[in-house]
Amino acid sequence: MADNKKLVAEITSMDEDFTQWYTDVCIKADLVSYSNIKGCMVIKPAGYAIWELIQKHLDARFKETGVQNAYLPMFIPESLLQKEKDHVEGFAPEVAWVTHGGLEPLTERYCVRPTSETLFCDYYKGEIHSYKDLPQVLNQWCSVVRWEKETRPFLRSREFLWQEGHTAHATMEEAEERTQQMLNVYADFLENDMAIPVIKGQKTDKEKFAGAEATYTVEALMHDGRALQSATSHNFGDGFAKAFGIQYAGKDNQLHYVYQTSWGLTTRTIGAMIMVHGDNSGLVVPPKIAPIQVVVIPIQQKKEGVLEAARDIEKSLSDYRVKTDDTDRTPGFKFAEQEMRGIPVRVEIGPKDLEAGKCVLVRRDTREKIECAISEVSAKVGELLDTIQKDMYARAKKHLEEHTFAAHNKEEFADAFKETKGFVKAMWCGCQECEDKIKEDYNVTSRCIPFEQEKLSDTCVVCGKPATKMVYWGRAY
Amino acid sequence: MADNKKLVAEITSMDEDFTQWYTDVCIKADLVSYSNIKGCMVIKPAGYAIWELIQKHLDARFKETGVQNAYLPMFIPESLLQKEKDHVEGFAPEVAWVTHGGLEPLTERYCVRPTSETLFCDYYKGEIHSYKDLPQVLNQWCSVVRWEKETRPFLRSREFLWQEGHTAHATMEEAEERTQQMLNVYADFLENDMAIPVIKGQKTDKEKFAGAEATYTVEALMHDGRALQSATSHNFGDGFAKAFGIQYAGKDNQLHYVYQTSWGLTTRTIGAMIMVHGDNSGLVVPPKIAPIQVVVIPIQQKKEGVLEAARDIEKSLSDYRVKTDDTDRTPGFKFAEQEMRGIPVRVEIGPKDLEAGKCVLVRRDTREKIECAISEVSAKVGELLDTIQKDMYARAKKHLEEHTFAAHNKEEFADAFKETKGFVKAMWCGCQECEDKIKEDYNVTSRCIPFEQEKLSDTCVVCGKPATKMVYWGRAY
Repeated sequence: MADNKKLVAEITSMDEDFTQWYTDVCIKADLVSYSNIKGCMVIKPAGYAIWELIQKHLDARFKETGVQNAYLPMFIPESLLQKEKDHVEGFAPEVAWVTHGGLEPLTERYCVRPTSETLFCDYYKGEIHSYKDLPQVLNQWCSVVRWEKETRPFLRSREFLWQEGHTAHATMEEAEERTQQMLNVYADFLENDMAIPVIKGQKTDKEKFAGAEATYTVEALMHDGRALQSATSHNFGDGFAKAFGIQYAGKDNQLHYVYQTSWGLTTRTIGAMIMVHGDNSGLVVPPKIAPIQVVVIPIQQKKEGVLEAARDIEKSLSDYRVKTDDTDRTPGFKFAEQEMRGIPVRVEIGPKDLEAGKCVLVRRDTREKIECAISEVSAKVGELLDTIQKDMYARAKKHLEEHTFAAHNKEEFADAFKETKGFVKAMWCGCQECEDKIKEDYNVTSRCIPFEQEKLSDTCVVCGKPATKMVYWGRAY
Repeated sequence: MADNKKLVAEITSMDEDFTQWYTDVCIKADLVSYSNIKGCMVIKPAGYAIWELIQKHLDARFKETGVQNAYLPMFIPESLLQKEKDHVEGFAPEVAWVTHGGLEPLTERYCVRPTSETLFCDYYKGEIHSYKDLPQVLNQWCSVVRWEKETRPFLRSREFLWQEGHTAHATMEEAEERTQQMLNVYADFLENDMAIPVIKGQKTDKEKFAGAEATYTVEALMHDGRALQSATSHNFGDGFAKAFGIQYAGKDNQLHYVYQTSWGLTTRTIGAMIMVHGDNSGLVVPPKIAPIQVVVIPIQQKKEGVLEAARDIEKSLSDYRVKTDDTDRTPGFKFAEQEMRGIPVRVEIGPKDLEAGKCVLVRRDTREKIECAISEVSAKVGELLDTIQKDMYARAKKHLEEHTFAAHNKEEFADAFKETKGFVKAMWCGCQECEDKIKEDYNVTSRCIPFEQEKLSDTCVVCGKPATKMVYWGRAY
């Protein structure tokens, strides 16, 4: 087991240094590699395979709601970016500018898309003429660029992968319905497939998307008590439509502006998965998005019949994503690797097991060992994957609940951020001055105004004036 | 049928003006839209859905051969692009340059990747140390940018979508094997899924990829007799490895350079599909990559039972990609639209059919009408889709054969390009002067040195010196 210890010893403990633990897991689990392009990452096969499964599950959910995929250009002419005032102010300081095409300078510089509202508006202006052309419900899977100063794998990088949905509707009601529908799609995906519980709510005006009338968010809590905004859905009202002149002739033969939405989820979801489920041995991947769900590890594989038995078990597990590790490394090394990569179940089979017609299943999440007749391995693994998925969600949910605190007044609010880490719920008057003051005093931001409101007291924890809303506060990635 | 005629009349006849016909189909079949970003296209849902199926089929084939997907940054620092001399000469004149990130000028400008050999080399240099790290067989699906002057939807645009595979091997033999293996994967995919017959062969030195030792290609013939290079696979030998210093310690404990390959297929495949299978009514999409394989069109749909019958037929066809067109447009309009979009089969069902327990199946490719008992529609549609797929390939193969000419001498070679359109096979001495002269005199290029060689004569059709190879010549997109 010497090499087992060695591999595991290379990760920093999460209690000692959570930031370093995160980086270690990203690198040691082979998810990413730093590139020589500052602030950009290489997503390696083990990381990209998770993204492919995220895409598959999410895309299927999108298509069930009538979303169609499309692809728009990666460049935005500067004049197009400038059409919506709030939007350009939000994004212009952090875009990459293309100034030359081939050997010639461009007459107008282009930015590489940081997000594609302006491009979709430009496209919809040409496509939408009559109420018959509505709704338009498009999505694209692509990469975007934001020139961040401080970067970390998956959480914040100059280029990242995402999907961005952009829709246009005849009425504000329909736009609002779509905005909320997509937020629910994200919540459902995150909770059921990623086993990540989320708080659904609305962003304050200060925190909303540049150009949006309302931004909704799903907020998750990481193991270290910091929040991570996991997906957002925006209702633009007719603001972009007015800036870009997107009008349709209604049944009343009058021209009307359209109402628009956008919504996105990025590769940072992989970062959330790491920080919600990981432990000191490495990744723990929820079965539904695990590229490999089961690894079969033969013990003393040179002994007669062992390798064959391992391969037979692999065959009997063909309903799952399974592989046999028949490399010439020691079992201890293979166990450590399975743990580091977060493969949900490993099956151990050695000469003695074989004699007894048994094998041993080991859960990654709890390390529980389960003896199992070889003939029943397929049924048992199926059950176990379901159980692991549910248990991972339940543990994360418990962590979220245990790290959410209610502050009924100023003192409790101050204490909450002194002593503990997590979400703090508190009443708010609704004015930005109080929001700014909280950020200044405690270095936390408003995460959302949750849909599930509670009345903790009558007054704002900052100014003492009448409270209008309960807000979740926290330190965020 | 008035609106039927109107819709069809909007396409130029392919015999009258093939170029205009092509553009008309792209636009009227809703595949693309021109964007306001010069030379870039918007791939609309009907076009992108075809690309998604191309990705699905090709990606499955890749994975069967052990390919893993990954994602590398979209930017290449200028110094990295310059490391391999031939490569930079080939690509530098047509890249887009990023000079500013946010408000700051970059210390070194970055180009947006036109292809990612240099990035993969930089990555492999960090990943490959020992023979145990080989082979590396990665692929990425992404967009690339080449600053083309003349652009056309799918065929040539400043930004396009593709996959690019990049591999590293211990030996030249293994690299050569992978290069040829991937060429065969492309040929198999194009012939079996896209119903596009191809000529497999090697590019001449003049036409090979910038930095490659050998480039292999699959060449298809369009309806107008012009060739289209449909995918390429390159063997780099150890040229890039030497330029980037990618070495591994072998079993012999010595350092060796790796041998590399790359291979790609792009959205221009959609252009090939249009020009190989389309006709004067629009697209004809091969069933295997048709986003909608069957459309059910109710006739007199307000009559009792018709719409219900149409929906029952749709349900019975749930093994296929099927939809019912129950919009309030006329059947004639719906027929024309099905033809324009190239949906392989339409099912017509009206009150009289319903009474007789029948419906009518109409093939898009031949327009043949087939009566079919409603109870047998699922089995019959399954057969029909197979037949259409095979027939489309056979027709394209016949067209290819009928438009391939053998020129045994200089006179026949000259005549071939005077009178007819298509591939011309002829003997070649192997020198670039003769290749250049052919381009100058006939405005055609060498398409490939086919793997299936014939001996048409003893001498080069240009210089009369001893011939070494038979070459396919043609005008290309």
